[in-house]
Amino acid sequence: MEVVCLDLEGVLVPEIWIAFAEKTGIEKLRLTTRDVPDYDVLMKGRLDILREHGLKLADIQSVISSIEPLEGAKEFLDELRSVTQVVILSDTFREFASPLMRKLAWPTIFCNSLVVDDDGNITGYTLRQKDGKRKAIEHLQAMGFRCFAAGDSYNDLTMIKTADSGSLFRAPENILEEYPELHLSTTYDDFLKTIKEFLNA
Amino acid sequence: MEVVCLDLEGVLVPEIWIAFAEKTGIEKLRLTTRDVPDYDVLMKGRLDILREHGLKLADIQSVISSIEPLEGAKEFLDELRSVTQVVILSDTFREFASPLMRKLAWPTIFCNSLVVDDDGNITGYTLRQKDGKRKAIEHLQAMGFRCFAAGDSYNDLTMIKTADSGSLFRAPENILEEYPELHLSTTYDDFLKTIKEFLNA
Repeated sequence: MEVVCLDLEGVLVPEIWIAFAEKTGIEKLRLTTRDVPDYDVLMKGRLDILREHGLKLADIQSVISSIEPLEGAKEFLDELRSVTQVVILSDTFREFASPLMRKLAWPTIFCNSLVVDDDGNITGYTLRQKDGKRKAIEHLQAMGFRCFAAGDSYNDLTMIKTADSGSLFRAPENILEEYPELHLSTTYDDFLKTIKEFLNA
Repeated sequence: MEVVCLDLEGVLVPEIWIAFAEKTGIEKLRLTTRDVPDYDVLMKGRLDILREHGLKLADIQSVISSIEPLEGAKEFLDELRSVTQVVILSDTFREFASPLMRKLAWPTIFCNSLVVDDDGNITGYTLRQKDGKRKAIEHLQAMGFRCFAAGDSYNDLTMIKTADSGSLFRAPENILEEYPELHLSTTYDDFLKTIKEFLNA
C-alpha cells in the first residue's frame, strides 16, 4: 500500500503569502520558505507585518477566496486520487487552506492552525508538531505504507529524504543547485508519470 | 487539529460481502466481522468459499460496481470533509474500495490489499499491519491530532477506545449489549452533531 504526500503551495496552488503581498502591495510579505529556511523566523516576521498594517484574518481569507489552483493541478490531483491515496502535507493553516481545498474537491490535508483573538487579529500560530512533514512520513511508514513525497521548498526536503521515494516539483534555482541528487518534475504530466512508476515498482 | 476516522462498510456503504452473497446466493458469504470477531478466520473462510465456487476478483468487482453508498452517506461525508479532516479506516481491500471511493468523491482511505494470481483468482490478502485501525489512531495522535473514531463492528472497537472520542454507528444488538458505555448514533444528522461537538470542544 502506498501514500503520496504533496506540499500544497507551489505544487498545487500559488504561494498564498505572495498572492496576499500582491493584493496589499506589502513587498516584505513576498518572502516564503523558499527564501527563509527557518519557518518560525518567517512566520513571526509575517505576523509583525500584519500587526503593523492592522490586517486581520478576514482580510487574508478574502484574498485566498480569489486564488485558483495552479493550471492543471486539479486534473493532476483528480487522476492521482483515483489510483492511490494522497495526503497533502503543508505548513499553511487550516484557516487559509479551506477555500483552496474546496476548489481541489477536498483532498485530505495535514497542516497547522492560527491563534486568532476576539477581534479577528492573528496573534500567533500552533504547529501541529515540530518538523511535522518529516514526522508524518515516518508515522505513515510505521502504519505500513510506502511513501512518495514531493514539494518545492526548504521545508519539504526532510520529508522527501525520509520518504521511500520523492521528487522536487518546480523548485527554485537555489534548491536545485544545493540538491542536485533529487529528482525534479516541472510539468504535471511528468510528475504523474514519476509517481506512477513508484506505485508500480 | 482534528482527524475523524470512519469505518467504511455499515457506516458509509453497505457490507460488501453481504451484497456479494445476495448476488451469488452463497449464504455463508453473509458472515462479517459483526459475526466473527477474528478477521483472519473470517477472511480465510471467505477465500475458501470463493475457491470452491470458482469465483474470481472480476466477479466480485462486478458486484461492487453496482453498490451505492448508504442513503445520505455522501451528503454526510461531504459536509464532514468541509469542516475537518477525514480518513476512512477499513479492513476492506483497495481492489474492492475503488469504485465506492469514486462514488464518495475520493475520500482518503487506509485499508488492505489482495493477493491475486495471473488467472484473477484471489489467493490471499495482505494486511497493511495487524490491528491497523487502532495503530492508525495511535500514529495520528503521535502526529499531533485529536482523533474521533466511529464504526459498527468488532474490528472498530479498539480504534474507538484508543481515539480521544468516538461513537458506534448503527451497530448490531450484540455489540450494543456488550459495550453499553459507547455512544451510539443511528442517523447521519445525529452522527454529524456528535462529531461537531467533538470538533468544537
